Amino acid sequence: MSATIHRLAPAGRAPSLEPMMALVAGDLNQVNSVILARMQSDIPLIPELAGHLIAGGGKRMRPMLTLACARLLDYAGTRQHKLAACVEFIHTATLLHDDVVDGSDLRRGRRTANMIWGNPASVLVGDFLFSRSFELMVEDGSLKVLRILSNASAVIAEGEVNQLTAQRQVETGEDRYLEIIGAKTAALFAAACRIAAVVGERSEAEELALDAYGRNLGIAFQLVDDAIDYSSDEETMGKGVGDDFRDGKVTLPVILAHARGSDEDRKFWRDAMHGHRISDADLAHATALLNSTGAIADTLQRARHYGQRAIDALGLFPASQAKAALVEAVEFAIARAY
Amino acid sequence: MSATIHRLAPAGRAPSLEPMMALVAGDLNQVNSVILARMQSDIPLIPELAGHLIAGGGKRMRPMLTLACARLLDYAGTRQHKLAACVEFIHTATLLHDDVVDGSDLRRGRRTANMIWGNPASVLVGDFLFSRSFELMVEDGSLKVLRILSNASAVIAEGEVNQLTAQRQVETGEDRYLEIIGAKTAALFAAACRIAAVVGERSEAEELALDAYGRNLGIAFQLVDDAIDYSSDEETMGKGVGDDFRDGKVTLPVILAHARGSDEDRKFWRDAMHGHRISDADLAHATALLNSTGAIADTLQRARHYGQRAIDALGLFPASQAKAALVEAVEFAIARAY
Repeated sequence: MSATIHRLAPAGRAPSLEPMMALVAGDLNQVNSVILARMQSDIPLIPELAGHLIAGGGKRMRPMLTLACARLLDYAGTRQHKLAACVEFIHTATLLHDDVVDGSDLRRGRRTANMIWGNPASVLVGDFLFSRSFELMVEDGSLKVLRILSNASAVIAEGEVNQLTAQRQVETGEDRYLEIIGAKTAALFAAACRIAAVVGERSEAEELALDAYGRNLGIAFQLVDDAIDYSSDEETMGKGVGDDFRDGKVTLPVILAHARGSDEDRKFWRDAMHGHRISDADLAHATALLNSTGAIADTLQRARHYGQRAIDALGLFPASQAKAALVEAVEFAIARAY
Repeated sequence: MSATIHRLAPAGRAPSLEPMMALVAGDLNQVNSVILARMQSDIPLIPELAGHLIAGGGKRMRPMLTLACARLLDYAGTRQHKLAACVEFIHTATLLHDDVVDGSDLRRGRRTANMIWGNPASVLVGDFLFSRSFELMVEDGSLKVLRILSNASAVIAEGEVNQLTAQRQVETGEDRYLEIIGAKTAALFAAACRIAAVVGERSEAEELALDAYGRNLGIAFQLVDDAIDYSSDEETMGKGVGDDFRDGKVTLPVILAHARGSDEDRKFWRDAMHGHRISDADLAHATALLNSTGAIADTLQRARHYGQRAIDALGLFPASQAKAALVEAVEFAIARAY
């Protein structure tokens, strides 16, 4: 399966987001204008705090997907600009609340909003952005889009609670883990892509195809992120290697290493996830176990599986620059791990 | 103005919510069924935590207003049930986040959800209820209702941030204070009433009249709450006397007493709002200042002003049992202070 994906990569250069960025550059400027205009408020703290995160070096992955999917469908209107801003607002609101929930102090290499302005401000500005995203959707006026995005929002929140209750439980099975990332990460990727088919007035089959593309890409992205956390440097991820380990986050690499380990290994993982193994030596031991059990390699193998499904979901669309860019986005998601 | 309101009160008994509760009892059962059904989730923590607050002795004031306004308009359908549940979900989500922001440990005489399940769970279940409320609105399918409620949600969040940035600032003017409670409290009262006119397919004038009724009632309610905080007992309010004082909450009584006080008094209020005056003797001194400056009496006078405006906003509707119940709800809001 690995081979299949790598065969699709353009010869001679590493897969990147460049083609997608080039494809939607003009649209993305429009989206950024909407974002900037609609995060304004007479209460100065709102644009100040929201701007810190929104301007803070995110890739705009989700709005780019909406825009690229609209291009894939040769949609000629402009509704995707407001809706892509919606998607980014929902994502930003989620990040603000996530950082409060996790007590994070660093995101994308910068101090988190909750560290600078405090938890109360992050909770409330998150609520504001979330409400504002609904206002934008209502302005667009499509009940179908509203249904897709309000459902995605509820699924995300449910997934976040699910993750909270699974916290530090190393016995979490792979199925439950996939359920969690399917909700908290992949649901918004899926919705971001799917709404393009709604504004493009395409068939149910095309709508579902874009949903499947986004969902599988989202899962692949998250799995690769989880693997990278044990292998990248701080510059690449904007957070330190082993952050998940020290925070006791039960991700797929840990689930696999725990399941495949000896009784002694399992005790190690249990202790680690409860915060009793946070030294550099512990992290080195964890990495050794992840490698000896093949847990990292197989997490990436799982990611390639979902990446391939994302690419195959695009099968019913004719070849185009947009399609090539969407395929390469999947390859990029996977290639980040190498 | 006080006299005007009291003339309207039914002779021989204290104004109460009983007539409104009797009027909408059947509808409220339907709303409670919707609430119960729609707060369910496969993640047990969600109904557990949400149920603690939703079943925890709230008056269901906002959904009752939606139902009573629908009765006022002789609306014969059932759309108000789902929408009243929406309104209660938005309110509950706000309370969950408020208690996190304020670090509250008691609400309606019971331990707060954040004290029992922690801040992360309260933030995330609040997000879930908020998303769920949007799903319910989308199911109703009226873009006009969606516009009213999504706007109210954004205004509430903006008001909460405004309040946060005004925290402990005793120089907050009455105008800014009214702006804050207009947003964080009255906007949802207004929307709860207004949407009844939309489902009842009434004129713009009737829609605006119900909006004005709810908005003014909401302000009156909040002002009376602020006054009661310095005079009631714990049983009445479900929180202790002087909680706002000890939390450094700058409410209208404090704003008036500060503005009317001597330099020495102002220093006292400044220190108090910054948390340096939290003894019982300090509270007694505060209460003495509030009384000697007439700050409590005038806060209640302001409440009567808004109460009267609420009642007058109903002027264009013919006399009916529903109208009498809505008028008495205003009188009840005011009479709680005596």
